[in-house]
Order: sequence, then structure tokens, then C-alpha cells
Amino acid sequence: MIIALDGMGGDNAPREIIEGAYKSVMEFDDIHIHIYGDEAKMGPFLKEHERITVIHCTEKIESEDEPVRAIRRKKDASMVKMAQAVKEGSAHACVSAGNTGALMAAGLFIVGRIDGIDRPALSPTLPTVDGQGFVFLDVGANADAKPLHLQQYAIMGSIYAEKVRGISKPRVGLLNIGTEEGKGNELTKAAYQLLAEAPIHFVGNVESRELLNGVADVVVTDGFTGNMALKTIEGTASSFFTMLKEVYGASLKSKLSAALVKDDLRGLKKKMDYTEYGGAGLFGLNSPVIKAHGSSNANAIYNAVRQARTMVEYDVCETIRQTVGKVDMG
Amino acid sequence: MIIALDGMGGDNAPREIIEGAYKSVMEFDDIHIHIYGDEAKMGPFLKEHERITVIHCTEKIESEDEPVRAIRRKKDASMVKMAQAVKEGSAHACVSAGNTGALMAAGLFIVGRIDGIDRPALSPTLPTVDGQGFVFLDVGANADAKPLHLQQYAIMGSIYAEKVRGISKPRVGLLNIGTEEGKGNELTKAAYQLLAEAPIHFVGNVESRELLNGVADVVVTDGFTGNMALKTIEGTASSFFTMLKEVYGASLKSKLSAALVKDDLRGLKKKMDYTEYGGAGLFGLNSPVIKAHGSSNANAIYNAVRQARTMVEYDVCETIRQTVGKVDMG
Repeated sequence: MIIALDGMGGDNAPREIIEGAYKSVMEFDDIHIHIYGDEAKMGPFLKEHERITVIHCTEKIESEDEPVRAIRRKKDASMVKMAQAVKEGSAHACVSAGNTGALMAAGLFIVGRIDGIDRPALSPTLPTVDGQGFVFLDVGANADAKPLHLQQYAIMGSIYAEKVRGISKPRVGLLNIGTEEGKGNELTKAAYQLLAEAPIHFVGNVESRELLNGVADVVVTDGFTGNMALKTIEGTASSFFTMLKEVYGASLKSKLSAALVKDDLRGLKKKMDYTEYGGAGLFGLNSPVIKAHGSSNANAIYNAVRQARTMVEYDVCETIRQTVGKVDMG
Repeated sequence: MIIALDGMGGDNAPREIIEGAYKSVMEFDDIHIHIYGDEAKMGPFLKEHERITVIHCTEKIESEDEPVRAIRRKKDASMVKMAQAVKEGSAHACVSAGNTGALMAAGLFIVGRIDGIDRPALSPTLPTVDGQGFVFLDVGANADAKPLHLQQYAIMGSIYAEKVRGISKPRVGLLNIGTEEGKGNELTKAAYQLLAEAPIHFVGNVESRELLNGVADVVVTDGFTGNMALKTIEGTASSFFTMLKEVYGASLKSKLSAALVKDDLRGLKKKMDYTEYGGAGLFGLNSPVIKAHGSSNANAIYNAVRQARTMVEYDVCETIRQTVGKVDMG
């Protein structure tokens, strides 16, 4: 199995990408990693390994580049070459921690959509208080969505949760502002019906208040709402840690208090760290394309590679293609 | 000035409603409070006061009642009579901690909309880390919205922030999934233009990640997104306190830690308690209608009455009517 990596994408590239690659081939003896990037920049961090190949690229996608234009013009960018390798079949899957919009464009225009899938979905796995986690999609591949798209997101998320996260009969919920059927805006009212008819274990509407409590294994929404919810969770958590730091820094007494629970609080922060589950899958493409978090360290890259490997091993994309094909015809 | 109270609405009615009423007339000698409700049930908690009048009602709206039907059929419900008093002019404003949907129906069908306002907006004031707070609307009066509605929310929120919260030139932001102009879904892309043309200090798109950091004084969105964001903030905060409690309860060491910062953490919780700012105003109606939180205690009721009083004192509804009228014609 060959997994392509974007050696230049992300805040800590290329060092952490390379480190993550090494960790991956040490852990899994059935994968071969192709790292795309500037050989000169990557050189200092590269070590010989029989299952790591470097492919030199002269360009890279910057974080401020306009996505579609960059993908079209920077033909020798690491991200572009990586996606092309997947398209041509010289890699089974790819991982990048770079410009999210550009990776989505590369997925859409180079790797291509599964026949029958209208819109791919950006799908991270988020933590829950019990540690099980849930798949959340779409968090921004497309701002607007129609009811049919939400149905497809539900099917793709369910297949992923089952095959990659090992959850049998994953509970799929529709993110809404009330639990009763009939609640919500025009989109969710219509989507509810389609989800109820889909080949999934639909548990109805779920409220955002309950997301981190593990109310479902897969939660479906349109990209605007998903991105909003994700950023709200991140922002609230961040504001909280800030306020907690203020509380702890306020006096000698509080500093002592902080010292006593420092490890526990670190554990709490780590629990909320969703890079442990890998990156965000771009579901609906012909092959696995994973967006690792921009600030990924070697461990996060390793988790994303592991995630991609499992998606290939369990033939997730082919299963999506077959399932969606049946829904279309049925 | 006469303020009408729903004596039967809310988890802690009628006792806390009555207590809140007393606190209010002690604090403000220019208000007269009319409490609507079942005299028998309220009796045990009532004390004589020359500026508190009780109006007996034989029915009440239950929390599980279907809103519009209940408002139409329970003609002697405390909430209905309260709203009618405002409609007829025998009260200047009203406050209820009862069934939110029913209060919105009472507002829409009994108190009535300001001429030119298409949709009222449910508008709480939420806390920020610096303690200034921000007005957030719409958080659920209507699930769907058109760009024009968002423009009206912006105008109403700005007038409220200026006159009631005492902020000169309130910064008005459009809740979006990116800060750059042109970001978002169809609704926000269109609304951006209308907000830029409105008689407000528009600061552009704001991300939900920054809400609690005081990025704007007024934040505008459609009711579905607003309700979602609100519940996400509440849920994340709640999950946090739960996880924090687990951390603190884990060992003797951590329990000691908790004891050391107990007061500071209480202060933190209080800071995040948005009943300090009053209730959620239902902006766009002919007179101030305030939805106090369902679990309101006497202090929360007092804050809501204070809020209603300020809205009357500064003629907020009339200002909205004039401003919106000018925008329509201009």
C-alpha cells in the first residue's frame, strides 16, 4: 500500500511530516510512503528507509493562496503532485496538513468525486467526554447544502464510522435546534425525511448542546452550520482555558491550586485534542484524502496516515460508491 | 410606568417572580408592577405593596403546550392577559419566564410587530471574557431568515445596545465562517451588503470562535444558526464544568486544589451567567417583551424588569420604528 504525503504543507513542515512518516513505516510494515516536496528543504530531516521515497517538487501551495487558482497554476506543487499520484493510481491515499481550501480543490478537481456523490464533505472526528468520539460532517467543504447532500453525508459518515472507527450500527444524528421531528429550518425539515429513508441507523435530530456528550456516532449538517459549530466549540473551549488561567494566575493560593492539578488539566486538554483521531477525511472522493490539522506534529501526521491506511484496508471509498449507487437506483 | 409580569411562567414561579417584583419596586420608585396569575397559588408569597397589583388569571401556559394553539385557546392564561395589557396600553412592557414559543406567539399575535418590521428577533445578551457582553440575535424567533431580516436585526440590536446597554456606536458584526468579505453561504453573502448599507457601525464578518472575546457589541445571524451557536456555547461550557469536576474529584490532591480556588471558580461561573444582563428581548414588537430564562430566580427577574424599564425609558421601540421607516424609504 502506498500513501502519499505532502511534505511541505502545514505549520511544522517539513520536519514533523517526515518524522510522522518514519513513525508510520515503523508501526506498519505494509505501507510505503511517498513524500512530495522540496528535496533541499526536506534534506536535513530525511533518513534512509526502504519504504520511504522522496519525490522532488519545485513549488508549494501557501496558506494564503487562493485555492482553485493555486491548484491550477502551481503544477509542480507538492500538494498537486501528491493528488495526481492518487488519481493515477501510483498512491492509494494521501495526507496533507496544508491549505484546506486547496486540498479540497485538489480533491474535487484532481482525485475526483465518486460516481453519484454530488458534494464531498470535510469530516473530522471530534472528542466526546467518554472518549468515544463522533464523526462530524460537513464542516466546510461547501457552505450551502441541499437535503440530498445531507443524506449522502449521512451514508458516507456511517460507512466510515463502521469500517474505520469500528462502531457497529453507528448512530447517525441530524444536527438541529430541537429534538422533535419537524423542528428546524427548511433544510433540516426536508433532510430529516431523507435520512429516515437512508440505509443507516438514524437516531433523529440531535442538539449541539449534546454533541460532546456522545449523543451520536455520526452527526450530519450543512457546511456553514458545521463550520460554525466546530469553531464555536473551539472558541468556547479556548475562552474557558483562558479564563481558567486567569483564575489560576490570580493569587499565590490559586497558583498552588494549579500546580496540584497541572497533570490532570493537561490530561483534560489532551482529551479534547482531536488530532488523536487522525485528520478530517474528505469523504466522497474516489480515494482517501485526509486533511491533517495545520499545526500537526509528527504524532498527528502518524494518526492521519494510520487513518488513511485503514480507509484503504477496508475499502471505504468503494463501499460508499456501491451504497450510494443502490440508494440512487432504489 | 407599569410593567406586567407573568406570575406563573418559569420553573420557580410564582415565588421567585413575586420576589423579583418586590426587589424591583424597592429599587425603582417610578415603576408599578402588575403580576398576572393564580391568586390562590401566588397568595402564600405575596406581601402588601402599594406599587404591586395582582390580576387573577384562571389558566396558565404549560411548558409542553403547543405555542400558537395555547395562546389562542387559553384566553385567561397569565401570559395571554399580560400581553393583552401591553397591547391595550395598560402596561408599558412585560416580562415572562414561561414557554418561549408561547411568549413569541403572544408577542407576534397580541402585542404585534412594529410597522415595517417583518420578523421579530429573540435577543439575549451574552457574556464576554472582559465582562462587557454582546447582544446576539436572532437566537430562534424564526429558523429561516432572508437578508432583509438580518439587516433589520442589525438595526434593532444596534439601537438596543446604544440606548439600553449604553454603548456609543455599537460595533455590529455578521456571524460568519470566515472574516473576509465574500465568505459564507448564500444568506450571509447577500446580508453582508445590506448590513454595509444600514445606519449602523458595521464591522464586517465575525467568527463564532471570537464571540466570547468581545469581537462585537451586536452579532447578527439567522435564528437557526443563532440557536445552534447559543446551544453549542452552553453545551461546551457545561461539558467543561463536568470534566473539570471530574478532574477535581479524582483525588485528595485535586480536591484540595478545588477547595483553594472554589470562590474563583464560582466567580467564573457567575461571569458566564447571562441572566445578569436581564432576559432575551423580543425585538421588533410594538412594546418591550422580555423572555426571562426559564430557571430565573428573583435576581434574574429583577434584572429582566430593570431591562424592560430601561427600554421604556429610552423609547427603544419607537426609535426602531423611526429608523426602520427611514431605511425603507431611503
